[in-house]
Amino acid sequence: MSVVFDEKFRTLVDYIQNGIPAIKRTGIRVLEIRDYYVKLIMPLEGNTNHIGMMYAGSLFCIGEISGGVIHGVAFDVNKYVPIVKEVNIKFTRPALTDVTMEVSMDKERAEAIQATAAEKGKADFTMELELKDSGGQVVSRVNGVWQIRPLPPGMKSPMAGE
Amino acid sequence: MSVVFDEKFRTLVDYIQNGIPAIKRTGIRVLEIRDYYVKLIMPLEGNTNHIGMMYAGSLFCIGEISGGVIHGVAFDVNKYVPIVKEVNIKFTRPALTDVTMEVSMDKERAEAIQATAAEKGKADFTMELELKDSGGQVVSRVNGVWQIRPLPPGMKSPMAGE
Repeated sequence: MSVVFDEKFRTLVDYIQNGIPAIKRTGIRVLEIRDYYVKLIMPLEGNTNHIGMMYAGSLFCIGEISGGVIHGVAFDVNKYVPIVKEVNIKFTRPALTDVTMEVSMDKERAEAIQATAAEKGKADFTMELELKDSGGQVVSRVNGVWQIRPLPPGMKSPMAGE
Repeated sequence: MSVVFDEKFRTLVDYIQNGIPAIKRTGIRVLEIRDYYVKLIMPLEGNTNHIGMMYAGSLFCIGEISGGVIHGVAFDVNKYVPIVKEVNIKFTRPALTDVTMEVSMDKERAEAIQATAAEKGKADFTMELELKDSGGQVVSRVNGVWQIRPLPPGMKSPMAGE
């Protein structure tokens, strides 16, 4: 699988795929990445359950990671760190193929969220996402609440480039 | 870690810990198991995130698996198979230790759910669960909807003993 992306995203792509051991173990991959947009893929291989469909936890993973990856392409990673507060996932159809997730955010919304965090010390943001199979059918719907907080003093963001 | 359980649960315990590769990779373990009750533990080691807490997806895993494990100790695994329909997880405190989850169900409720499945071909059930750290503090709250359906003809339950 050949993926072309801007050199400035090299550290972020490596961090998404390899930075957190439990995520790395799933084999998740970046398909497309640019400012304010990321597309990821979760392989079916290695992620099947007792009846041959994608395991619920691997679907959760590609849904939940959206908050971290949008942070990496839409927010100032040298100022803020993302956390997840709540996630709801509905399993609407069996996932029998690799599964993709696209996440994006308007520049204006990203700036407004960061303005709130700068003023109040933290800022919540919600997102609704669809997880799709290789035929484009929605297999899961994800709603979540994430939050950005100031990066602790002295901490270097693992998402930041050199 | 030494765990004592009734010989009849040997196949189920092995299935919980090793049956689904993505779950096995987390290192989840059964601490206690008896009819209508299971206690599981998720190790912090191997499951940390970018800020040293337990990764959200590993917390989801020990919450979501509750539907499968309660099926194994409260329902007739030779007649029904469980699926998950929806899960909501709230991350209420940072999880900085191993995390445990206890799940139980009344015999009467389990029988009523199976009676519905026998009559209608499927039956939903909801559960609310608390995930706790080693100090007994709740780190996540999980609400979910699971469903049992008849085991497909010719399929042997992976949870059934010999």
